[in-house]
Amino acid sequence: MMRSIHYTTQGRLDKDLTLDKIGQVLSEKEGLMWVHLDCPDEQELLAVLRDTFHFHPLSIEDCQSTGYQTPKVDDFDEYLFIVVHALQPGPQFDRLETNELNCFIGENYLVTSSLAPEMSPVNKVWNRLHLDERLIRRGTDFICHAILDEMVDEYMPLLDDLEEEIEELEDAVLTDPQLETLQRILALKHNILALRRVISPQREVMNRLSRDDFPQIGHQNQIYFRDIYDHLVRIQDLSDTIRDIVSSALDTYLSATSNRLNQVMKALTIVSTIFLPLTFLAGVYGMNFRHMPELEWQIGYPLVWCVFILLALGMAWFFRKRGWF
Amino acid sequence: MMRSIHYTTQGRLDKDLTLDKIGQVLSEKEGLMWVHLDCPDEQELLAVLRDTFHFHPLSIEDCQSTGYQTPKVDDFDEYLFIVVHALQPGPQFDRLETNELNCFIGENYLVTSSLAPEMSPVNKVWNRLHLDERLIRRGTDFICHAILDEMVDEYMPLLDDLEEEIEELEDAVLTDPQLETLQRILALKHNILALRRVISPQREVMNRLSRDDFPQIGHQNQIYFRDIYDHLVRIQDLSDTIRDIVSSALDTYLSATSNRLNQVMKALTIVSTIFLPLTFLAGVYGMNFRHMPELEWQIGYPLVWCVFILLALGMAWFFRKRGWF
Amino acid sequence: MMRSIHYTTQGRLDKDLTLDKIGQVLSEKEGLMWVHLDCPDEQELLAVLRDTFHFHPLSIEDCQSTGYQTPKVDDFDEYLFIVVHALQPGPQFDRLETNELNCFIGENYLVTSSLAPEMSPVNKVWNRLHLDERLIRRGTDFICHAILDEMVDEYMPLLDDLEEEIEELEDAVLTDPQLETLQRILALKHNILALRRVISPQREVMNRLSRDDFPQIGHQNQIYFRDIYDHLVRIQDLSDTIRDIVSSALDTYLSATSNRLNQVMKALTIVSTIFLPLTFLAGVYGMNFRHMPELEWQIGYPLVWCVFILLALGMAWFFRKRGWF
Amino acid sequence: MMRSIHYTTQGRLDKDLTLDKIGQVLSEKEGLMWVHLDCPDEQELLAVLRDTFHFHPLSIEDCQSTGYQTPKVDDFDEYLFIVVHALQPGPQFDRLETNELNCFIGENYLVTSSLAPEMSPVNKVWNRLHLDERLIRRGTDFICHAILDEMVDEYMPLLDDLEEEIEELEDAVLTDPQLETLQRILALKHNILALRRVISPQREVMNRLSRDDFPQIGHQNQIYFRDIYDHLVRIQDLSDTIRDIVSSALDTYLSATSNRLNQVMKALTIVSTIFLPLTFLAGVYGMNFRHMPELEWQIGYPLVWCVFILLALGMAWFFRKRGWF
Amino acid sequence: MMRSIHYTTQGRLDKDLTLDKIGQVLSEKEGLMWVHLDCPDEQELLAVLRDTFHFHPLSIEDCQSTGYQTPKVDDFDEYLFIVVHALQPGPQFDRLETNELNCFIGENYLVTSSLAPEMSPVNKVWNRLHLDERLIRRGTDFICHAILDEMVDEYMPLLDDLEEEIEELEDAVLTDPQLETLQRILALKHNILALRRVISPQREVMNRLSRDDFPQIGHQNQIYFRDIYDHLVRIQDLSDTIRDIVSSALDTYLSATSNRLNQVMKALTIVSTIFLPLTFLAGVYGMNFRHMPELEWQIGYPLVWCVFILLALGMAWFFRKRGWF
Repeated sequence: MMRSIHYTTQGRLDKDLTLDKIGQVLSEKEGLMWVHLDCPDEQELLAVLRDTFHFHPLSIEDCQSTGYQTPKVDDFDEYLFIVVHALQPGPQFDRLETNELNCFIGENYLVTSSLAPEMSPVNKVWNRLHLDERLIRRGTDFICHAILDEMVDEYMPLLDDLEEEIEELEDAVLTDPQLETLQRILALKHNILALRRVISPQREVMNRLSRDDFPQIGHQNQIYFRDIYDHLVRIQDLSDTIRDIVSSALDTYLSATSNRLNQVMKALTIVSTIFLPLTFLAGVYGMNFRHMPELEWQIGYPLVWCVFILLALGMAWFFRKRGWF
Repeated sequence: MMRSIHYTTQGRLDKDLTLDKIGQVLSEKEGLMWVHLDCPDEQELLAVLRDTFHFHPLSIEDCQSTGYQTPKVDDFDEYLFIVVHALQPGPQFDRLETNELNCFIGENYLVTSSLAPEMSPVNKVWNRLHLDERLIRRGTDFICHAILDEMVDEYMPLLDDLEEEIEELEDAVLTDPQLETLQRILALKHNILALRRVISPQREVMNRLSRDDFPQIGHQNQIYFRDIYDHLVRIQDLSDTIRDIVSSALDTYLSATSNRLNQVMKALTIVSTIFLPLTFLAGVYGMNFRHMPELEWQIGYPLVWCVFILLALGMAWFFRKRGWF
Repeated sequence: MMRSIHYTTQGRLDKDLTLDKIGQVLSEKEGLMWVHLDCPDEQELLAVLRDTFHFHPLSIEDCQSTGYQTPKVDDFDEYLFIVVHALQPGPQFDRLETNELNCFIGENYLVTSSLAPEMSPVNKVWNRLHLDERLIRRGTDFICHAILDEMVDEYMPLLDDLEEEIEELEDAVLTDPQLETLQRILALKHNILALRRVISPQREVMNRLSRDDFPQIGHQNQIYFRDIYDHLVRIQDLSDTIRDIVSSALDTYLSATSNRLNQVMKALTIVSTIFLPLTFLAGVYGMNFRHMPELEWQIGYPLVWCVFILLALGMAWFFRKRGWF
Repeated sequence: MMRSIHYTTQGRLDKDLTLDKIGQVLSEKEGLMWVHLDCPDEQELLAVLRDTFHFHPLSIEDCQSTGYQTPKVDDFDEYLFIVVHALQPGPQFDRLETNELNCFIGENYLVTSSLAPEMSPVNKVWNRLHLDERLIRRGTDFICHAILDEMVDEYMPLLDDLEEEIEELEDAVLTDPQLETLQRILALKHNILALRRVISPQREVMNRLSRDDFPQIGHQNQIYFRDIYDHLVRIQDLSDTIRDIVSSALDTYLSATSNRLNQVMKALTIVSTIFLPLTFLAGVYGMNFRHMPELEWQIGYPLVWCVFILLALGMAWFFRKRGWF
Repeated sequence: MMRSIHYTTQGRLDKDLTLDKIGQVLSEKEGLMWVHLDCPDEQELLAVLRDTFHFHPLSIEDCQSTGYQTPKVDDFDEYLFIVVHALQPGPQFDRLETNELNCFIGENYLVTSSLAPEMSPVNKVWNRLHLDERLIRRGTDFICHAILDEMVDEYMPLLDDLEEEIEELEDAVLTDPQLETLQRILALKHNILALRRVISPQREVMNRLSRDDFPQIGHQNQIYFRDIYDHLVRIQDLSDTIRDIVSSALDTYLSATSNRLNQVMKALTIVSTIFLPLTFLAGVYGMNFRHMPELEWQIGYPLVWCVFILLALGMAWFFRKRGWF
């Protein structure tokens, strides 16, 4: 599905342009134009990107590819080609998923294309555009910034969720280390790795857009890309911190399990050390030797109970003294 | 709450200027002026920053935001926008908290703003200003340096506390590895991570202020920012050391627990290895076979006791030889 | 075996040139020529590379060497010498193997040489060349790009296999940590290390080909090498992620085994703690003291069973309360 | 205590100059002068550094501070301010301690100052100066080099000690992992961290002194600072190696303890597995059932002993086959 | 012992020059000369290096020093001073040892010096020189390259040995984790660390020799130093891989030991869980209560055996269901 909007030099807003009209705007360089391809099929993609805009085959290939593309900026003199990623929780196991957005910024046009349907950052900016015409007047680079800004703003709550979960898991690891906790820690680790894979090159994209001298990016708008860059630095910072905590949570898991094992073994050792000697003694007086004088004593039985109790108390006192319970 | 001070070219100190007066000083570039916004509400913030000083919307947004902002310097030709953080122990679990301070340095003014009430570095410099007029004569950049210097001076005791605690924990880990020790180590790790997140970009801020050529920072004052930079290098150094020790404390915990487990298991094994054979032997002479010649012997019972004792002593000697106790 | 193709300036395609013909084309710089040495013996190699093309002895030595050569670009004014590696699963233990391909790019010729027989990227391009003549018209640098592109395209499925296997192993580690799982994790680690050893310098090769100013690489074709570079960045990214997961899989293995040990020890402790006291008690009433009043009681035996059952239930309740089962 | 020496242009050596004389030498830039402040009190420090040499307040502050200062070079046009550290074993726990030395190098003077009394590198150079006049003729920068060289030469034996100790500990960890070994490993780790904290910035100081163009450092003397730099690279190298070994010693400790635990548990399991079934069997024939035919057999008792022995031997054979002992 | 060779401009080869002759060749800059000092005593060293060639005292000091010197190139306008290291297995514990070689390259001379006797790379080149006169005609820089090339060629088999051993150890760790395996892993780690300490700066030396513009190194010979550089990159690559495997071997050791412990504990738990209840039951019917109806039953004894067997089978079935054996 293709959506398009054209802001003419007369200040008129035209919508849903035909391909011919787009081609005409393009050749006359008249006004500002934004074309968005929402989940396009191959035919539509080629008709727009190849036949109308004449973009480079490699860029079009990147738009078609369903595999993961590293975020990047390619500078084709005439236009900039930008690949960025939105993040959203996937359908299962809380795994984060990335949705690729491809942007072409030319002198007076912005073309965005995504194989994911109805990307919320694009929709939000699309709607804001209809509410507030001033947005488009600031140029196609500013619209592009607005989309990227929305996209990066959606990262933060995801990271906050991750941070909250890892702090929860850290407590769980200390108080009750279960395999399920381990599983959740690993899932978190996968998410953090996925995040880092996206954020780090995306940050580099924003850095280049805010620093390098591209004719498509107005100088007064570069500070806005710098602002996104700062956001991404913050996000990467936080994700580094979370990653550190995830790592130490794995170590802690081991320490906590080991500690627990110590408790268990102490319990076993205490019980064994108390009852094995007692059982031995009981066994002794269960022997059938003919000549065992103690057996004949009147006070033999109470006496042996005294020995039992004294032995047990002695052991208990010994363990307590060593701080075992 | 807004506080302001104006040092006129006639050497007069005016205080608590009205917004109109501030605007007038600003347009006439007369004298030196410091305005501090202490925990301002949104209305006050906008009135001062947007309507009086006409700062860039992105900077004002940063001042309004309650979330964590990475320390940075933004250069808006007319003025520098600096974000830095003070550190202080939080209300619970000894978690360190960061308080953001935003500074705008212009040609003849300094505007500081913080959402945290009554920041001590600001207050200290404010008071020194009233005691010693020479401070303001050295320029708004020097006042800014004074505030940052106070702020960084407050880091060191916090780090010393952390170092002291980790050395204490290291001992605790060796002599008595408890889950609570693990918990405290993890809390320390969180604090160190929080510290590093603040210090490393803050250092970069100081580096830029002491190296780059900003018209708002006098050349003879740059060495003072360099001095703060050196302090931060030292602090980061120390925090790296502490972090290394925290990491090895986790490893040590595991080693110490494992060692302790070894002790426990040795105890269990010694007791079992001594008493299981004895109990077996006692069980043998507790059997009811009709024809067991030993049972009839007069010296059977004393003999078996001898065997018990010899066996037990033999085992004990064996374990001692292997260095088990 | 030598294969060669010559695209004359008249647009004719000559094949299987003699060495004399090759020498003639070379000296007249007429048309475009590709010579491929498929698994050549030393004599053939020297005849072509040394006696016909007069390449530098060090490059020829690299072509002859059967050991692993680090991917690189050597710039000999007249020509570029490129060493790259294809990857394929080895015959045993799923170990990846690398096949070296050496390329010489001159002004109007491309010489490729490999000691591995029938390398698929070379064959694919060779066949495409016969189907689509336009390929050779774009220059020898473009043919070289086509081969490298095919080569790098073959990496991705291998990495996907690795990623799939590590995720499988991660599950296996959690649910059933066996030594065999450990063995497979280590094999995976070896593969990832082999990959990284190849990819990282190969990426650098592509970077230089797309950035540096080599007369043999046309400016309009550099973006194609940049595209391969982007692919390699993506692959290295993914391999970093896999490596991180492999590392944490080893940690998880330890955690899972430790957890399992805990379960085993709890079982042992529960059984021991329940039956050791009971056995002791049974032993007590198996003693042969003459005067043991309880033995005479009518309800002695049922009573002792009640004690047995109560004791066992009490222990079970205690362990359940502590969450041991 | 202040020591001073003045080498006049007439080739005379004057000692113990008054402050006035120092001021005069300074203003006339006559000859070469070295002033050393050994453990000065605040008054003396200010009299010399502030009132006579007029150094920058920040440098003087660094000389006064008793806390740890990161090694650095500060370039104040007129003079260089250098902070370096000597190392020596501290009074307890074999902890290394650092002693700060501050050097000011001007055109014709060297001022050194240390809060640690009688620093041996300074004393050695002081004495050499009296034995060999040529030393001072080579300039104040060469004297400074001589002091730093002596200082760095004192590092090496400390590192050799550390290396020797860690190799000893590594053996101890393998053959007999005790908590005390762990304690010593941790102490070593602290020392290595302290070393690295000092060496790395100190190396940077030497790098700058040997590379940068300071008017106070003669070009022909820079190679001597380069020599110290090489020494420090070697020392840092060695300290990296030691640190790696310390890290793996911690891992080894865990592995060795774990191995030992395995031995202990095997012993326990062997004993239990042999004696528990035997004890059970003895218990069976200790039962008081009226109708137990075996009990009546003449060969019952010898037979059961055969069973005991065969069972025990069978178990032992089984464990030996599995390589348990 | 000193060996020397002089290739005159007339194409004559003179050998074993006197010091006077060397001095003459040096001052007349006539022909090419190589002097090698094999394991020289101090007197000889000073006579040649200081009194004949007049090298810088710092370089001569490096030649005299028996301690480890970091590989480096020092540029003294007149000549280059190069420190490199050969590797060879030491006399004990398979520890690798380094032998230092010092080279001075001047305009028309090469001086090599080593405290290790009869270094094989030097000897090999010395012999080749007598067989093939062309070698010396290519210049002293080429002879130096030849020596370094031989030296680096001797690294590879050592690394292959290390790689073979670590793969062997990796298997040993999985199938039979013994303390001796741990010991061998640690010895390997020491060797790898020693290797890395030598290779990394040595690579830097080659990089400088092949890139920088030294008058002593002919432009056409720089590619040969580049070739050694490529070799060293490959060696460092491989040593990185081995180091990674050594690290994970330590982790694997722990995992395998832990796994083995699990097996041992399962065996113990199975035996205990089966026999403790049985022993208890046998103990019950060994009690001497007067009124125990079961004892009187005719089928009491067979019945209790049934219970014994059913209980044991039940336990075995339970453990098998949980996959314990």
